[in-house]
Amino acid sequence: MDKQKAAAEYQRRNKAVRKQLAAAGTDGLIAAGVENVRYLTGFCGHDSWALVLPRCTMLITDSRYTEQARGECVDCRIIERKDGLVKTVGAILEKQKGVKTLAVEDSCSMALFKSLRKKLPVRLSPAANVVENVRIVKTEDEIRLIRKAGRIAFDAMEWALGLLMPGMTERQLTSLYEYRLSDYGAKIGFETIVCFGPNGSRNHHQPGQRKLRKNDTILLDFGANYEGYTSDTTRCFAFGKATAFYRRVYETVARSQAAAIAAVRAGVKMIQVDAAARQVIEDAGLPVYGHGTGHGLGLQVHENPYLSKTDKKGRLQAGQVITIEPGIYLPGQFGVRLEDDVLVTENGGEILSRDKRFDIRVDNVPLLK
Amino acid sequence: MDKQKAAAEYQRRNKAVRKQLAAAGTDGLIAAGVENVRYLTGFCGHDSWALVLPRCTMLITDSRYTEQARGECVDCRIIERKDGLVKTVGAILEKQKGVKTLAVEDSCSMALFKSLRKKLPVRLSPAANVVENVRIVKTEDEIRLIRKAGRIAFDAMEWALGLLMPGMTERQLTSLYEYRLSDYGAKIGFETIVCFGPNGSRNHHQPGQRKLRKNDTILLDFGANYEGYTSDTTRCFAFGKATAFYRRVYETVARSQAAAIAAVRAGVKMIQVDAAARQVIEDAGLPVYGHGTGHGLGLQVHENPYLSKTDKKGRLQAGQVITIEPGIYLPGQFGVRLEDDVLVTENGGEILSRDKRFDIRVDNVPLLK
Repeated sequence: MDKQKAAAEYQRRNKAVRKQLAAAGTDGLIAAGVENVRYLTGFCGHDSWALVLPRCTMLITDSRYTEQARGECVDCRIIERKDGLVKTVGAILEKQKGVKTLAVEDSCSMALFKSLRKKLPVRLSPAANVVENVRIVKTEDEIRLIRKAGRIAFDAMEWALGLLMPGMTERQLTSLYEYRLSDYGAKIGFETIVCFGPNGSRNHHQPGQRKLRKNDTILLDFGANYEGYTSDTTRCFAFGKATAFYRRVYETVARSQAAAIAAVRAGVKMIQVDAAARQVIEDAGLPVYGHGTGHGLGLQVHENPYLSKTDKKGRLQAGQVITIEPGIYLPGQFGVRLEDDVLVTENGGEILSRDKRFDIRVDNVPLLK
Repeated sequence: MDKQKAAAEYQRRNKAVRKQLAAAGTDGLIAAGVENVRYLTGFCGHDSWALVLPRCTMLITDSRYTEQARGECVDCRIIERKDGLVKTVGAILEKQKGVKTLAVEDSCSMALFKSLRKKLPVRLSPAANVVENVRIVKTEDEIRLIRKAGRIAFDAMEWALGLLMPGMTERQLTSLYEYRLSDYGAKIGFETIVCFGPNGSRNHHQPGQRKLRKNDTILLDFGANYEGYTSDTTRCFAFGKATAFYRRVYETVARSQAAAIAAVRAGVKMIQVDAAARQVIEDAGLPVYGHGTGHGLGLQVHENPYLSKTDKKGRLQAGQVITIEPGIYLPGQFGVRLEDDVLVTENGGEILSRDKRFDIRVDNVPLLK
């Protein structure tokens, strides 16, 4: 992004936040969540807050980060604090006579909120999802980065899978993948899940010393973080011959995922997308997964919205990016989950993460060597 | 640890927590912090709570984690929830007639606390540092794991540095290190900091595309996480010839670190340790660092206690493990920080992370090749 375009984008974000604050009758916001701070200021470091005031946005940071902040911040004032965060914000507010009420993200800890309430000369109110409501709809640039993160993840995993052989551990495959990611200037989007054989039924398995055997099934849940934006995809394979039962389960999950993606469109109730995925598995007489069907992703790997069987009201909006990830888990045997990143549009769902090297084929289990 | 010893240790931890709860007049605790949950139950997954009640401790988890929990939990009941966490805890408490008041970790979010207060049939009070107060003193097993994490980090970094050559980027060195870590069954303890040249003055620099040049200075802040326990060490080098000024700065930081470590002993005020480090740099007429002098480490890379110039009362206790990490930062030129992990004993500080391959020599800058 060129400088002018970047400034306009950061102004849009802060303006959208101010509009919400005004509607709620508050004069400003303390954003402490690291992704929210980044979204409002461009700053990629930690331990810093964005203070959104009626006329400007400030980044409150410390000497460890000042140099970095100067290079990263867009259209915001950088304050290098000498005291604690709370005290520094207090001193700033003393001079901002117009600011009487301040929203604080309710993701902040109880401990922090108590300290703020004790020390700041303004009225505070916890607020939910102020920045998240703006983040939930992605810009073209954000969509480009999520798509690119997905491509990098596939590039890295393709390379790692090229080295796969019997006897390799889950941990080794994981580290080959993660090593290659960094060659592309990316980091992991979240803790990589690599499961061999029965470990696949453990939804959040941590890769361990289990060695790959011939005819093992493999489940890979992997993502890249590229310039702050994350991809999140899951693929399953058999390393050798797949049993007829594995094929049946795989095909059922593939049909479940396809049904959910086909249901994605701006304005549709999220519970309908969720139900579309579950119905296919239920109809096949196989166990329906206990987790949600998907979640938003962007600066965080899990962010609004969440597709679950309990949210009866929420509807998809154009510009959201969500995962669709049904699965079937058979403890002691194996697990199959298939996951892609999907952009919600007025006309339907556009898959950002599909790649012919990692095609999901309903009629076929992709076999490695 | 054998099963019996493990059960005794987890009983000790939970008993120590119950003792604090009783002293504060509360009947139980909801622990939501992932490290606290692990400390109390043995469970290594996410999105789960430990519910400490007068007669037992429960892990509240969901179907994604049940299998894993069965393999990991020690001396605790595993509850697989079908509903939300809050609702599930509510249902449990309905049956626990004796539980009238519950402490909730004040690290929990405002949003969660509000939801708990609305839905639980007991009186809630935010509580600080309940589990952290127990965690702050390490057992022999924990010390062994921190020491082992440090050795793995050095093993991995030694290997990565063996491949170092001009033209290599910060990111490449980082990923070589991280790749090797996983060969040892470890993960990163925190985001690895690799700085070439002037980037060393940025305390929390994120490794980028800067290429190594002859005579560059190098700053490496790296740690491993081994079985949940973290090491955290920093080393500095010149890749080729070090200037006389770099040597002077390096030697000053080494003397500063040595002075602080010499001041470590059970019962000593932490501010004295902090002051010992700063004094050496001030006496040398060089700029004193803006960050703290050290922090506790264990299940988290930053945990209690914190050594700063503002805490006038806190004293070191035997069994604590802390970092000692003074630095000198010269924007546009370079940075030097030297950091080790130190066990506090009655007789002084025992360095857990020193290794002859990564020796800090006051009289000499270790030169690579």
